[in-house]
Amino acid sequence: MSRLTRSSGQGRAVVVDKREAILRAAIKVFAERGYFNSKVADIAGEAGIADGTVYLYFKSKDEILHSIFDRAMEEFISEGKKEIAEIAEADKRLRRIAELHLEKLGADRDMAIVFQVELRGSTKFMEEFSAAGFADYLKIIQQTIEEGQKTGVFRNDLKPVICAKILYGALDEMVTNWILSKKAYPLAPLADEVLKIFFGGVLR
Amino acid sequence: MSRLTRSSGQGRAVVVDKREAILRAAIKVFAERGYFNSKVADIAGEAGIADGTVYLYFKSKDEILHSIFDRAMEEFISEGKKEIAEIAEADKRLRRIAELHLEKLGADRDMAIVFQVELRGSTKFMEEFSAAGFADYLKIIQQTIEEGQKTGVFRNDLKPVICAKILYGALDEMVTNWILSKKAYPLAPLADEVLKIFFGGVLR
Repeated sequence: MSRLTRSSGQGRAVVVDKREAILRAAIKVFAERGYFNSKVADIAGEAGIADGTVYLYFKSKDEILHSIFDRAMEEFISEGKKEIAEIAEADKRLRRIAELHLEKLGADRDMAIVFQVELRGSTKFMEEFSAAGFADYLKIIQQTIEEGQKTGVFRNDLKPVICAKILYGALDEMVTNWILSKKAYPLAPLADEVLKIFFGGVLR
Repeated sequence: MSRLTRSSGQGRAVVVDKREAILRAAIKVFAERGYFNSKVADIAGEAGIADGTVYLYFKSKDEILHSIFDRAMEEFISEGKKEIAEIAEADKRLRRIAELHLEKLGADRDMAIVFQVELRGSTKFMEEFSAAGFADYLKIIQQTIEEGQKTGVFRNDLKPVICAKILYGALDEMVTNWILSKKAYPLAPLADEVLKIFFGGVLR
């Protein structure tokens, strides 16, 4: 649900903005201090609201983390689906998915830290995270590979689900390295390097 | 340092075994409860020793996590180096590295959870973890790719450091999926699937 659709009335707009403000503040606080070290009071302070106000929108710190993940994945998947629907060839579609993955996280470092680090810090999160939007995302990659196998653009002797995980794993590693690197560099152009290897292979 | 080299005297042997017992217990406790939720007392309980005894060997829970990582990486790298030194061709050497990666983690699920989840839960750990043994590991993969480029077995138009990160990212994703999967399956055979794509590419 976009901010616009929810902010038709004056009162509603305030509600959405406060919810937004809490989520933005939480992304910043989790990225800086780590999820386990953050308190709801830190998030309220960063958002410039009273501690109690946070609880009008979210039951717990855990629910805030889940909302960050769910909202980001929903946005990413719906935007992504719209974009790739206009691309005919499976390989070009896969290229656009890889680019979007790195563009999106490369444009928001705090969000990238929450996705690459804070959401990975417990098996509980990881399981929920895998079961939720992440599985949908992997499915889109897998289906694109299956289509490419049907139309003959991709090799038929590879398992689409494994291909999808490998492409995801490679992109994911690029994002984690980008976060941890002492040097600043743009993330998005690495989609090309990843695809050169994924598409072309390494052996001569 | 292996257990044997440290356990030459009777007293030393006991020391090494207690240290070992604490590390093994910590791997189990961290994997089950998560690093942030675990207490030193839980580790002592699991190892069957008094809480205070743990502090004779380790200053803190943090130091225990670091020792788990350092010891496992040291072992993995020294064993790996020995094995690959006997393999002449770069592509076969790379295959053996990928197999060892999945064999090692596939043989010890608790250790795999500590590596894939507990060590990733904070940027602080991630930075230390990257700076330490992990960078050495990535370097070995990178050098193997560089050698393969020199001997003509690998394409020359790919950046070895990016190739190394992509192969690592792909293997890493296989391990994380294996941990989180509700179904039990052997991890090691997936090295072949990863290399089929990494070596051969996806496009027809």
